[in-house]
This record gives sequence, C-alpha cells and structure tokens, in this order.
Amino acid sequence: MLISTASRFGVWCCALTPSVRLFSRSSNMAKSKFEYVRNFETDDTCLRNCYIVVRLDGRNFHKFAEQHKFAKPNDDRALGLMRKSARSVMEELEDIVIAYGQSDEFSFVFKRSSTWFKRRASKLMTHVASQFSSSYVFYWKEFFENQPLLYPPGFDGRVVLYPSNRNLRDYLSWRQADCHINNLYNTLFWMLVQRRGLSTTQAEDRLKGTLAGDKNEILFTEFGINYNNESAVHKKGTTLIWEKRDETIIKRIKLPNGEEKDMPVTRSRRRVEAYHCDLIGEQFWKEHPDILEDDNC
Amino acid sequence: MLISTASRFGVWCCALTPSVRLFSRSSNMAKSKFEYVRNFETDDTCLRNCYIVVRLDGRNFHKFAEQHKFAKPNDDRALGLMRKSARSVMEELEDIVIAYGQSDEFSFVFKRSSTWFKRRASKLMTHVASQFSSSYVFYWKEFFENQPLLYPPGFDGRVVLYPSNRNLRDYLSWRQADCHINNLYNTLFWMLVQRRGLSTTQAEDRLKGTLAGDKNEILFTEFGINYNNESAVHKKGTTLIWEKRDETIIKRIKLPNGEEKDMPVTRSRRRVEAYHCDLIGEQFWKEHPDILEDDNC
Amino acid sequence: MLISTASRFGVWCCALTPSVRLFSRSSNMAKSKFEYVRNFETDDTCLRNCYIVVRLDGRNFHKFAEQHKFAKPNDDRALGLMRKSARSVMEELEDIVIAYGQSDEFSFVFKRSSTWFKRRASKLMTHVASQFSSSYVFYWKEFFENQPLLYPPGFDGRVVLYPSNRNLRDYLSWRQADCHINNLYNTLFWMLVQRRGLSTTQAEDRLKGTLAGDKNEILFTEFGINYNNESAVHKKGTTLIWEKRDETIIKRIKLPNGEEKDMPVTRSRRRVEAYHCDLIGEQFWKEHPDILEDDNC
Amino acid sequence: MLISTASRFGVWCCALTPSVRLFSRSSNMAKSKFEYVRNFETDDTCLRNCYIVVRLDGRNFHKFAEQHKFAKPNDDRALGLMRKSARSVMEELEDIVIAYGQSDEFSFVFKRSSTWFKRRASKLMTHVASQFSSSYVFYWKEFFENQPLLYPPGFDGRVVLYPSNRNLRDYLSWRQADCHINNLYNTLFWMLVQRRGLSTTQAEDRLKGTLAGDKNEILFTEFGINYNNESAVHKKGTTLIWEKRDETIIKRIKLPNGEEKDMPVTRSRRRVEAYHCDLIGEQFWKEHPDILEDDNC
Repeated sequence: MLISTASRFGVWCCALTPSVRLFSRSSNMAKSKFEYVRNFETDDTCLRNCYIVVRLDGRNFHKFAEQHKFAKPNDDRALGLMRKSARSVMEELEDIVIAYGQSDEFSFVFKRSSTWFKRRASKLMTHVASQFSSSYVFYWKEFFENQPLLYPPGFDGRVVLYPSNRNLRDYLSWRQADCHINNLYNTLFWMLVQRRGLSTTQAEDRLKGTLAGDKNEILFTEFGINYNNESAVHKKGTTLIWEKRDETIIKRIKLPNGEEKDMPVTRSRRRVEAYHCDLIGEQFWKEHPDILEDDNC
Repeated sequence: MLISTASRFGVWCCALTPSVRLFSRSSNMAKSKFEYVRNFETDDTCLRNCYIVVRLDGRNFHKFAEQHKFAKPNDDRALGLMRKSARSVMEELEDIVIAYGQSDEFSFVFKRSSTWFKRRASKLMTHVASQFSSSYVFYWKEFFENQPLLYPPGFDGRVVLYPSNRNLRDYLSWRQADCHINNLYNTLFWMLVQRRGLSTTQAEDRLKGTLAGDKNEILFTEFGINYNNESAVHKKGTTLIWEKRDETIIKRIKLPNGEEKDMPVTRSRRRVEAYHCDLIGEQFWKEHPDILEDDNC
Repeated sequence: MLISTASRFGVWCCALTPSVRLFSRSSNMAKSKFEYVRNFETDDTCLRNCYIVVRLDGRNFHKFAEQHKFAKPNDDRALGLMRKSARSVMEELEDIVIAYGQSDEFSFVFKRSSTWFKRRASKLMTHVASQFSSSYVFYWKEFFENQPLLYPPGFDGRVVLYPSNRNLRDYLSWRQADCHINNLYNTLFWMLVQRRGLSTTQAEDRLKGTLAGDKNEILFTEFGINYNNESAVHKKGTTLIWEKRDETIIKRIKLPNGEEKDMPVTRSRRRVEAYHCDLIGEQFWKEHPDILEDDNC
Repeated sequence: MLISTASRFGVWCCALTPSVRLFSRSSNMAKSKFEYVRNFETDDTCLRNCYIVVRLDGRNFHKFAEQHKFAKPNDDRALGLMRKSARSVMEELEDIVIAYGQSDEFSFVFKRSSTWFKRRASKLMTHVASQFSSSYVFYWKEFFENQPLLYPPGFDGRVVLYPSNRNLRDYLSWRQADCHINNLYNTLFWMLVQRRGLSTTQAEDRLKGTLAGDKNEILFTEFGINYNNESAVHKKGTTLIWEKRDETIIKRIKLPNGEEKDMPVTRSRRRVEAYHCDLIGEQFWKEHPDILEDDNC
C-alpha cells in the first residue's frame, strides 16, 4: 500500500517496506546483478582523421524570437548572445579550432586529430549543446537588459564528419551561403513590411521568384540601400577562431632601489576572436593557415 | 589585406572585396555547389520497439559543488534544482514516460513506440541535454536564493537502448542501487568528518572494506542514526512520472436564476509527479502499470 | 626502375631495392609505426537481447537462372541446393535457431542471447555470406548433375535486429507472405506462357490487377489446378530448425559369454530439419516452443 | 496436428490447414501488415570521400591447410587460388582500385568516390565475401588438381574507412609489414623443422626473442639461404591493380583487292595485373599515380 502526501512540487513518498533492510545488506551484490545493462551502450567513436562538426539549431526560435521581441530582420542583442555562448563553448571544450554561426545556429569544428572525449560523438555533441544552452541563459541579461527571459530555450544538435580540408571548407561555405541568401531576403522582406506597410503575405508574394540581383536592385532603387554596405555580421555571420594577441597591462613593479613604479607589461595570450568575413574564398584561409591540418596526415 | 579593429568582444571585420558583389548575384548557385556536404550526415535512427534512455551527467560537478557550497552529503537545493530541470525536460519533450535522477545525474526514458524526432539519437540526446542545462540556470535562483551561480555548468549525455521491460527495469534498478550505495557511504563518511573530526583521508581509511551491514551498524552505534529513517529522496533518488490527478478549483458560476455563485469544479489533469520510492521491487510497477508497454508488441 | 615479366596470370615482379635489407632489420618497428590504422575500425556490436537476422539475396539470379536453365516457375534442383547450403551454414555457425528461405533468398536467425563473434554484425553477416556461397558451389553437382556451373555466383547480405518475439515472427511472416504472393503469381504466369502460348508481356497484361482470389479461380477453371494442392515447398518456402531425433543403428555387441550379436542402439541426435509449413499462424510455434526465448529476459 | 514423413534430407511437411485458403485471398493485405519490419533495418552508409577497405580472413585456415596438405611455409597452389579468387572479386565488383593479399587474407580497396551499392557497408562486405568464397571453390581444381576439396571453406570480413591517402597507404604498409615478419619467421621455422629435424616446440624456442637480423643471419649461416633471394610473392604478398595493356592478336583481314591476310591488331585493354613488390616506399605509387585520388577533393 502506498502512503503519500503531496508537496508543492508534487513529491510523493512511499512507505518503507521491510525489503529495504534486506536490500541494504546486499546492495553491492544487487548492483552487480544489474550491471549487465551497461553492455547495451554502443560505441559511437568518430572516425579518426576527420573533422568533427557539431551544429546546434534553436528549437522553435521563430516563436521564441517573437515572444522576446527580437528586432527584424536582425537582432544584435540575440546575435551577441549567440556569439557569447559560442565563445563559452570554445573556452570550455578543448580542440575546437573554428566555429561559425548565423541566425539561431552555430557550428563547432573539432580538429581532425582531436582525442577529446575519446572522439565519442554522443559526448561531444551533448556537451556542446549543454554548455551552449546554459551559457545562453547565464549571459542573457548581459545582452537583453530590460527584456526578461520568459522560459529556458532549447537547442538540438548533430555531428557530421568531414574527411578533407576541402569538405570542411565547403561545409562552412554552405552555411555562409545560406546566411547570405537568408539575410538578403530578410533585409528586403522587412523593408517591404516595415517601410512600405505590406502584410507579410504581400511581401512574400512580391519576393517570389526574384533572384539575388533583383533583390539588390529593389533594395537600391526603392529604399536607397546598397546591400554591400550592410553590416558584415548580418551578411557574413560570425566566425570564431583562436588567436594569439599581445596584451599590455600596467603592472606595479618594485625597482632595485626600493621604489615602486607602474610599468607596461606585454605578453602573448591565446584568445577567441570573432570575424565577420568571407569564408568561401581563399583569403581568410591564407591569413589563418593554422586552422586546418594538412590533408596528408 | 585585412583591415580590422578590435572591439570589446574581440570582433574583427574584414574589408569587403569585389568578389562579394559577384557572389551575391549567383548566391543560390554557389550554395547548391556546396550542398553535397549534407550527404556526409549519417542516419542514427534508434532501433524500433526499444526503450530509448538518455542519461545526463554533470561535468566536473565535484568542483562545481564545492564552488557553490553544496551541503554534504546531500544538498537539497541542488537536488530540487535537478528535479525541477528534469521536470522541465519532461514537459517540453513528448514521449518521456519515466525519469530517474540521483546526485548529479538524470535518466530520461522515451516510450518504446516513440517516433519523437524520428527516433534520431543525436536529436534526442542533444535536445534533452540542452533543455536540462538551460533550465538548470533558469531555475537556479528559485533554489539557491543567496548563492549566486558563478558560471554556466555543463552536462554530457548518452543514449542507450533497451529492448525489453526487464532490461529497462534492470537499468533503473542499477541506477537506484548505485544511489543507495553512494548515499550510505556518503552519509557515514561525512558523519566521520563532520562529527568525529576525521580528515577525509582518515574517513576513507575507516570505511575501506566495510560492507553495507557494517556501515549501518556504525551509523547506529556511533551516531545513533537508523539509516532506514533517513530521507527517502537521499536513499532512493527521484522518480518522475506522468499522472492524472483530480484538481479542484473554485469557479464563479452563473445560475439559471441570474445569481452568481462560487462552485468547486473538479477536473482531471495530467502532470509530472515525483516519487522517492523503491524501483527495484514489484510494488512500484504494479501501482503504475501504464508506464511500460507490453513486451509482446 | 621496374624490371618485370608477364606470367600467365599477369603477375609482375619488381626488382629488389636496397631498402629491402634495411627494412627487414627493423621490420617490427616498421609494422608498429603503421599499426595506428587499426584504430579506424569501428565497433558494430549488435544490440543485446535482440534477434539477429542475416538475410542473403542472390545477385543477378534472374540471369543466373536463365543461363543455368532453371525450370519455371520453380526449379527443385535450385531450391534443394539453396536448402543444402543453408543447412551447411547452420551446421557451421553456432546459435542460428531458425532459417527461412524461398526463391533465391535465405534468412538466418541468431538467438537473442547469442554471443557468437561477440555479436559483431560484420563478422556475422560476412561469415554467413561466405559459408553459404562456398557451399553453393561445393554442392552444386549434387543437385545439378548434368548442368555445369558456368561461373561463381554471388550473394549479398544484410543484418536486421528484432527486439521482440512478435517482431521476429512478423519478419518471418513477411517473407512467407512474399513467397506465397510470388508463387501464386508465377504459377499462373508460367501456365499462361507454357500452356496457353502467351508471350511474357501478354501474360503480364492478363495478370495486371488480379487479386489472389482471381488467380486461384483462373488456375482452377482454365487449368484445372487447385492451388492448395500445389507443392508445399513452393507455396510455403523452407524452414530449417534444430531438432532432436531418435536414431537407431545396428551395432555389433560383445555379450558376457563371449558371443557377438547385432543389437539396435537408439540415441538422440540434434540435427537440422526442414519444414514447408505455415509460419504465420500459431500452430508451428506451439509445436516448437524452444525456438524463441522469452521476451521477459 | 502435424502429419509428417522424414525424407533423406530431413524434410518435413505440414498438413494444410483451412486457414491457407483464407490467407491466399487476402495475401497482399497480410503482407502489408507485416511490412513494418522493414523499418528495423539500419542505414550503414559509409562516410563519403573515404577509401572503403574490405578485408577477408580465412576461418580456421590452420586446420584447413593441414587437412588439404598445404606445403610449408608457403603453398603456391593456395596462394594462386587466393589470387585468382581476388581477381574474380575485382572483375565482378566495380570501383575496387587495388587489392592486397598474403597468407589467407585479402584486402580490397574501393575508390574514395565510389557510389557502388550506395556505399552500404553491409552490401559491400557481404558481396566481396560471397564472391571470393564461391570463386575459391569454383577455381579450386585449377590449382589443386589431385587434392580434392573436402568441405566448403569460410571467410569472414570487415569494413574499415580511411579518410586520406596517407592512412590508406599506411594500412597497406601495415599488412605488408605483417607479411614480411610472418614470412621471415615461417621460412626459418620450417627450415629448423624440415632440415634440422627439430620439433615445432623446439623450433619455437629457438626463435624466441630473435630479431629480424638474427633470423637473416641464421638462415644464411646455417642453411645458406639469402632471404633477399627468396620468392617475392612470399616476401611481399600480392598486389592487384587495374592496368591498360596493349594486346596484339592476329586477325584475318580482307584487303581491297579481295585477298585475305593475317594481320597483327593491337588494342588497349584494361585488366587486373598482379605485382609482388614493395608498397611501403614511394616507388610503386609513383609508377602507378592513378590508383589514389587527390586528398584535396
């Protein structure tokens, strides 16, 4: 028989049965009897010598954006929070060499020789998803001062492997091309809605079948906007990489003669830097030759 | 050449190159050229007709507990927050029929016939990890009023499949036996440290080689503690299930004669309830016959 | 430089280079340098407590059947050879509890508790495919006396897991329903071609849209064939299981008085038996209760 | 009730039950009811842009070799049959660019861009295992004229993926280093047994702890054998690749003046060629630059 009382959190307690005593005496034995269930776990080690990409996507972020009054077409607070959360992931997990984000998604690339978490896919993607999500809530206030977070948001993730530098670069190019296409569309779409007063359905109809060139043209002729001058963060998304930078701080030094003096001290520090530039061409990769490892390994 | 300026967050912008204009004209074409990378994704659909268990474990929670001054051996604020976060996961994701947690871990069981996320393992585990983690930060204050959260915590997860009811029950029994063994050990360990003034090393030495019966005996004779009377939540962990409960609210009703009157209205509502009882024996499963689906399906 | 001479088999030899000598001195060292490639193997252990089904299908058997003049619609020599090869697989590999075959396919079911080959899917399916194929060639003459085998045939295979008895039985029912549908169709199709002189296209057209009942009717009214009286092996396919049978042999025994006498000796022997009966209903499974293991394990 | 009679092959027939008639009327319906079991198949597509290696190993070939009186340390008939079977696999399956074999094993390498069998691992490895095994029996007589094949042999297989040319070459080097080490050992071992009359245990003891250099020395001083002069096929194993060769045949040609004349006609034909040379160094790969595809793809 169950004797229970409800608590505020709906907690229910069961009456202790005599079996408890018995159980506690042979608890290790009991546990070992059940331990066979560990063998049902499967090995999901990622193939060696491949880049491991973990991509996160916001769950129901369309609704989330509306409920939290995100600006259209781009909310810089939201983009800043995504960037901050991604940075938190990179600083927490070793071996992420580059991350790329746009809109409500972020991709994290582990170096091909990484042995982090023994390359177990489940561990890698859940840790990334977890760290990103807790950071998103933790740093919310830093970006959305007066806008309270109404409920804890969710992200889902996946793992994809890329065997060659070309494949990895094409993956990043794919995401950046996606960013570009969406941003061009959204920039014009919200101009039509916000400036012209079109309904969202009317704006959709207007844009149906237009090519990139057409959209550039409309933006320029109807709204005086040169899309090329739009913000790089919106057009190109955000790329995070590790960089060594010289940092100079003022340190109070004791001189041989007993005096103290403020002295500038410069040291090299590895930190995550954000870029908003083209990943599709060669330039970025030439300027950062250390991100990718040689294919011939 | 790169023209860049550092911002507070280390954001760097690249000069726009002529290629940008060109790119924007043929952006859809460019994107489709890269889209082959999607084919590198692998299908990780979970085998049908198996229970899908997602287990989360706190990352470096030993250190996290110390930094946030968790009470020893059990911190009820922390356990409450774990429970609250798990409840948030259950309410957000369909098809979780039972969840079990103890210490810094929580297991979520999707029903064997679930088609949530098309049974894709990566989606299931990352969404659970994400929702749990964002909830943990979101509800922190509700449980740790005066203790600020110092940094965003991380959890990692895994997926395990169980083909039969017996296997699933043995999994849950395994986790509960683990809870029991650890709690008995920790209860006595911290008594020796906190009441007897032993160092942690001395306490460890004292406990080396003792059986469950020995520990019960020491607790009783040296500290006057009957382990059976200890809190169920600590001994048994927390089990969350869906239950229908009658809820009675007072509603103002308009009577045929035009008068208004307060009337109690009772309706059945499905909600997550928490139990702290034995999962190893038959009793719990007899009392909740709807949690498991028949093996013969 | 390569110095080579062609042999009958197109074998080419390379000149020995000085590096060979050097290599042979440090060969173990050389080997250990390459051994890292073993880590690229992935673990493909089959989930525990599931039936493991390996199904083989003949490669291009339509053409193979024509080239080897298989009788239409069923060639009993070919079916006998398939059965013999399947029996060879069962006798060679432990833990196959039932096998079912029809046409050019055969399914082998490993018991759910099997640990054969550590449940490694690749090992299980390749060994089955290999043993079946070598047996097919080895026993060819026993069934096709005057018909020489023109080239070595190929089979491909796959592994499928079934978590419950119901799932496994439904799998076997699916294959047997397939056998029935095809055999009914083929029986009538070849009657139309062989007896009526229709072209294969005409026969196809005639059968388009007919239901099972229609086909039975045509067989009976036009050809005087009661499909129910057709051979069970064609209608039901072949089921192989292990059975204990009493075998009586005559043994010469020495009596106490020194005389010798022929005596019948009966002993129980486990051997593979073939059935051609319904697997969809309950009867077969009631008569052979030892094939399936309890779901509740 | 079961009415059955035993046949020579242990075939048992079941009495037809009334349900058969019923079943045949609704057979398509019945089949569709079971077809859900197809969803239990899992996708085992190999990661794109990786070399797919299928390696076969003989099952219990130590015993098989003894029963079929293989010569020690190397039986050229057996090696020839392995080579012939591997050639049959290459000619049957598209996209194998190189194969390497030694002793009772053979590795087949599918080109990294292959889409054969949609890159499904199970199909690839079972087809290779099957084709190899049926060929082994089919061509047995061609190599073992007076030695009858006693029973159908078995091979098991596995699939391993290699993302880069370096990894693939290291895999092949690993197998060849293994061949070298074993052959040096076996050459000396059987000299000690066959020439010196040592027992196999004594020969093992004698070789314990010896390095490659020691073994070369013993071979030379005790048996007058310069290991470098041993047969390349034994020292290096067998490498099969596709090559274009000019083939000249004599064709009877009708001249303009009506006369006929035998004329040599040369055409280029792609065929499998066998090499027994070093794969570890650069030379082989420089001479055959078409085997590997560029990493940067």
